[in-house]
Amino acid sequence: MTIDSPQTETRLLQRTLDRLAEEEAAALERLFHFLAIPSISTDPAYHDSCVAAAEWCADSLREIGFDARVEPTLGKPMVVAHWRAKEEGDKRRRVLFYGHYDVQPADPLDEWDHPPFSPRLVEDARHGAMIVARGASDDKGQVMTFIEAARAWLAEHGSLPVDVSVLMEGEEESGSPSLAPFLAAHADELAADFALVCDTGQWDEATPAITAFLRGLAFSEITITGPSRDLHSGLYGGPARNPLHALATILAALHDKDGRVAIPGFYDGIRQPPASEIAAWRKLGFDAAAFLGGVGLSTPAGETGFGILEQLWARPTAEVNGIHGGYGGPGTKTVIPSRATAKLSFRLVPGQDPDKIIEAWHRFVEQHLPPDAGATYAGEGGSPAVGFDPSAPAFRAASRALEAEWGKPPVMIGCGASIPIVESFRSQLGMDVLLIGFALDDDRIHAPNEKYNLKSFTKGARSWARILAGLGAMR
Amino acid sequence: MTIDSPQTETRLLQRTLDRLAEEEAAALERLFHFLAIPSISTDPAYHDSCVAAAEWCADSLREIGFDARVEPTLGKPMVVAHWRAKEEGDKRRRVLFYGHYDVQPADPLDEWDHPPFSPRLVEDARHGAMIVARGASDDKGQVMTFIEAARAWLAEHGSLPVDVSVLMEGEEESGSPSLAPFLAAHADELAADFALVCDTGQWDEATPAITAFLRGLAFSEITITGPSRDLHSGLYGGPARNPLHALATILAALHDKDGRVAIPGFYDGIRQPPASEIAAWRKLGFDAAAFLGGVGLSTPAGETGFGILEQLWARPTAEVNGIHGGYGGPGTKTVIPSRATAKLSFRLVPGQDPDKIIEAWHRFVEQHLPPDAGATYAGEGGSPAVGFDPSAPAFRAASRALEAEWGKPPVMIGCGASIPIVESFRSQLGMDVLLIGFALDDDRIHAPNEKYNLKSFTKGARSWARILAGLGAMR
Repeated sequence: MTIDSPQTETRLLQRTLDRLAEEEAAALERLFHFLAIPSISTDPAYHDSCVAAAEWCADSLREIGFDARVEPTLGKPMVVAHWRAKEEGDKRRRVLFYGHYDVQPADPLDEWDHPPFSPRLVEDARHGAMIVARGASDDKGQVMTFIEAARAWLAEHGSLPVDVSVLMEGEEESGSPSLAPFLAAHADELAADFALVCDTGQWDEATPAITAFLRGLAFSEITITGPSRDLHSGLYGGPARNPLHALATILAALHDKDGRVAIPGFYDGIRQPPASEIAAWRKLGFDAAAFLGGVGLSTPAGETGFGILEQLWARPTAEVNGIHGGYGGPGTKTVIPSRATAKLSFRLVPGQDPDKIIEAWHRFVEQHLPPDAGATYAGEGGSPAVGFDPSAPAFRAASRALEAEWGKPPVMIGCGASIPIVESFRSQLGMDVLLIGFALDDDRIHAPNEKYNLKSFTKGARSWARILAGLGAMR
Repeated sequence: MTIDSPQTETRLLQRTLDRLAEEEAAALERLFHFLAIPSISTDPAYHDSCVAAAEWCADSLREIGFDARVEPTLGKPMVVAHWRAKEEGDKRRRVLFYGHYDVQPADPLDEWDHPPFSPRLVEDARHGAMIVARGASDDKGQVMTFIEAARAWLAEHGSLPVDVSVLMEGEEESGSPSLAPFLAAHADELAADFALVCDTGQWDEATPAITAFLRGLAFSEITITGPSRDLHSGLYGGPARNPLHALATILAALHDKDGRVAIPGFYDGIRQPPASEIAAWRKLGFDAAAFLGGVGLSTPAGETGFGILEQLWARPTAEVNGIHGGYGGPGTKTVIPSRATAKLSFRLVPGQDPDKIIEAWHRFVEQHLPPDAGATYAGEGGSPAVGFDPSAPAFRAASRALEAEWGKPPVMIGCGASIPIVESFRSQLGMDVLLIGFALDDDRIHAPNEKYNLKSFTKGARSWARILAGLGAMR
């Protein structure tokens, strides 16, 4: 298929969207079949169900015209599928779509209104019809928005606007141990211009989003040593160095009075998102009181002068995740322990190198160590932040497509946490990633009564139909 | 017996000391019988041995003229014995001697050169003859220095210079659970002018000591609360208050740059030992490098401007004994925990009230709590410090007696830790306590091959003979 003109493009897309409308009931039936398979990857009792879910995905992709197969791994199998245009063009784009067919465990079972693997439509006053089942939103419903869009394009026109490979894993909810070796072994086969991932959310019910900024991570475990053995605080307290004091002093010095990280060089070279994006975030009407109130807080901590969204999406942090040292049992034990340990993690933004941050942290510790206190480190590592360029052609094309469907442009949002697949695709396959999903904050993923709004499902499929068209039309 | 003149006193004492010399072999044989009883109080398998040790003590006291009995408790029995002069005089002093007949477990057994309950004399190049057995120094050997002194007085003269009650417990090595109720039930019977306790050490082999300064203790467990649940540091890190940071900040603020406790009011009203005692400590030739080096340290921590002995014996401290919060398992978990806990203890000196110190600590915390952080407390309590007046008559009398025996006056030393029996005698019976013992730092108490120098035993008994004379002669 060659797309000749904007007019032709529009006509082809409209027929695809019409086809999606006609197929809605059938699409929902297909999704329900998928949701009925209890593909819980973390529980060995469900291994056969995971294999069945992989086979179901491969069958579905084969049925709509993909060359699909199930590839065994040491864990759960991968689904790999390709659709390639017969006439190859130089300018023809290739994308890799990623999703996962495994789901979280369903317990506590007694908190579900219906059995978690007996999907059903539930009418809701606020959301309208909702698809309720384990995996409805994370990630089976989201995956099927893309596959239904591809089905409609192929059914209507016999072709897709871009070449598409599909990779579906079955271990996303259990640490993805097979993913990195699989990507390494199949790098050539999976190579594409960029990746599409449907495992994220919208800004809100009416506002689509592309997740374009992801903080990186550096982590370190520090052990402060002092006396060669635990001491009695009566017989040694005063003249003997207490590692707990030294550790507290170092950790208290991590931030200045304005909440900035006080490690020299920490902010060197950081790159912030474009000012236009930050300005857009400020207009989102983010409800800081609700965000904090939902976890029992009321006052923003962290760096003064930055809004909460800006802090979460575009500012680095130094966070202590655990401190353990000395006596922790019931009652009193007047001990000066010989050592004390803390675990820290640093959320990073573009421009920060995890290795250099760890080095700066070590230098900072050295500067704050009192006499007779030593520092050793363990379990260190990290990955850099990701900040995609929202003005890059693929982002602009996807943005226009989402605006056409939702009536407003998508927000280029950030995510305070890493998304491992993004890091894997970037580091192993050298690909940028378009993170577009239709989940909502109240979808109850990982919780009882997980749901996906029917509107998320239908408009999600329409969104992908439009995005595929837009990516195909990129010049 | 009425002591008429210094000359008579000297003659009576000399005959008592001569008697001790004559009895040395027999005294050692008696001690060996005592040491052969495996009276391990913490191990129920040795309950009968504890009872046997109590009976042995009561028999010994009866044999030398005391009215002695074994009193059952819910745990190990108490030995209570009295000797009263027939002619009662208004000015006649009464003292209560305390010791314990129980011992620590002997394991690891294979590190003993000889079986722990087969006492023997071992010749040592440095120490000369040493009595080696579990309990040789702690506390059977020490107890018998007093009983042998009393035996010699009674054998030689039929009387003691002061009225004496003896209390021996069998739970000192297992927390003394029966002591407080027993003292409460027998307060009248045990009332005396002051108590004598033989369970401490000398300054060194040649220098006797009276332990006159004991730090008190206040303790508190603090829990800092923050979010209502554990948070993901990616999704909340930055704007969410981290209780670990708040806790570290509070604990880091506990001390100023000079090592002083920064809690307002902490030092209010403290009383230091007499300047003459502190001057005496400075002349003791304390080996700071060996003290610190023995536990892997090299630089005195704590308050600048105070020597180590002064810090340990006469300066208060604030010490963190444990911090526990957040993730402590293997690897990384990027959590912002909802709470974090620390255990603290404050060593106190005379003039400090444990309750007021705890109140000042709470006020200090309130001043350092950031928004959205709360503090709750648990397990609080304490006991005041003890600082005896070295110029009080009993201390002066004991001091002269020790000087006569050792050729140099005793050091009025401190102890950085509390000694529970001192607190019990003061709070329950209203008595001051003369803590005089002949143990040495290298006696290996609580360890394999525990020993008590034969010289400690013989000169200890002579010391008590002199002290009894001195106390009897007090005007």
